[in-house]
Amino acid sequence: MKIAVLGTGGGARAHIAKLVELGHEVHVGTRDPRATLARTEPDMMGTGPFKEFLAEHPGIALHTFGDAAAASDGLVINGIDGHNAVAALSAIGDQLTGKTLIDYAVPYRYNPDIEHPWPTPWGVMPVLDPCDSDSLGEQIQRALPATKVVKAFVTQEQDTVVNPKAIGGGDHTMFVAGEDADARQQATDLLTSYGWSDVLDLGGIVAARGMEMYAHLHGAIGFALGFGTHFGIKVVR
Amino acid sequence: MKIAVLGTGGGARAHIAKLVELGHEVHVGTRDPRATLARTEPDMMGTGPFKEFLAEHPGIALHTFGDAAAASDGLVINGIDGHNAVAALSAIGDQLTGKTLIDYAVPYRYNPDIEHPWPTPWGVMPVLDPCDSDSLGEQIQRALPATKVVKAFVTQEQDTVVNPKAIGGGDHTMFVAGEDADARQQATDLLTSYGWSDVLDLGGIVAARGMEMYAHLHGAIGFALGFGTHFGIKVVR
Repeated sequence: MKIAVLGTGGGARAHIAKLVELGHEVHVGTRDPRATLARTEPDMMGTGPFKEFLAEHPGIALHTFGDAAAASDGLVINGIDGHNAVAALSAIGDQLTGKTLIDYAVPYRYNPDIEHPWPTPWGVMPVLDPCDSDSLGEQIQRALPATKVVKAFVTQEQDTVVNPKAIGGGDHTMFVAGEDADARQQATDLLTSYGWSDVLDLGGIVAARGMEMYAHLHGAIGFALGFGTHFGIKVVR
Repeated sequence: MKIAVLGTGGGARAHIAKLVELGHEVHVGTRDPRATLARTEPDMMGTGPFKEFLAEHPGIALHTFGDAAAASDGLVINGIDGHNAVAALSAIGDQLTGKTLIDYAVPYRYNPDIEHPWPTPWGVMPVLDPCDSDSLGEQIQRALPATKVVKAFVTQEQDTVVNPKAIGGGDHTMFVAGEDADARQQATDLLTSYGWSDVLDLGGIVAARGMEMYAHLHGAIGFALGFGTHFGIKVVR
């Protein structure tokens, strides 16, 4: 397939590398390709310059967001951070019409006015915005009514989303949610190709609330197990 | 042990019955014992009159909240609903001093001004209050600084909290959080006596945020699996 991945951060790179390995034609979108290629320093998350990643993964095309989306023949993975996703995706417009967009962002909002007791690598535990009575997944679906938005991947680090068997032989659970059943199936098929055997369809995009709000429990489990411990959750039933 | 259970709802009853079965002396607290015993109709959750439950479980003492807490020799389980918990527990005061209080409430707030698309048995998906930058567990700990508050049980229906082996042979995960390590261990020991083999200590009470906010994902999984399907989550690592 011709698959677009929007974003060049660590999560996006995990999907890009895996999709190339699976034989897909991958079109990567970034806000300003020239600026992305000019970067020589690691980003705020410590991820190295994208140019180095491209050199290690030949055959990947780098475009603007819009051109990458246009090059996709049906599937787009959104790796744009949650804070900027709605604005950046809305600006793409027609090139996303009729396509399936899988979003995996946690809508963290750094708020310097709130004191959080929880240390993180970046200082404090960010709050979520939106949260509880709305979700980023729903916001994106409202902003792009002609696109089939699916929330997925968000309950896990992307490195293990593309390599589920690295944890417990792969016996854990991935969730998908979205208004369009065919799009949820498309995401499920992609996950199956990644090695997932237990993908739980949560139905409509409203379930993105629970998937995004799980970020706090995910963080707490991560702190308890210690940084660097990969884990997943299995719905035992 | 002499254990107090505050509340007479379905969740509290699951713990009461299990604790009696395990040979503990159980002291149940209710706001107004006379009113509780006078009830002859099911409550809003469809739970039958407490008088019938007492008749089926001989040897249980029914007290006011304060008298039940006073009768405990160290451990109190809070089954007061999240909306009323802080006020009701604050009113108990000294009888909780120095004791371990395990809270399992989800702080649902029914808000008729917000339209929720998610049908539940009681109409809509309630929002959480507090949420994200605070939790009920933290609120209770702040209200009762001389009590060792532990958040636990909240990620699962109480019927399976007291009977974990009913799901997947018991191979799923329970979480505990609280400021006092001994109190977390006390909760862990109780869970072990219930049959739990994987209790994950999440550290300080701030982790109650994640445990309470998981309610949305728990609800979504429950809807996906269908009502009546019992499930738990296993942290696979």
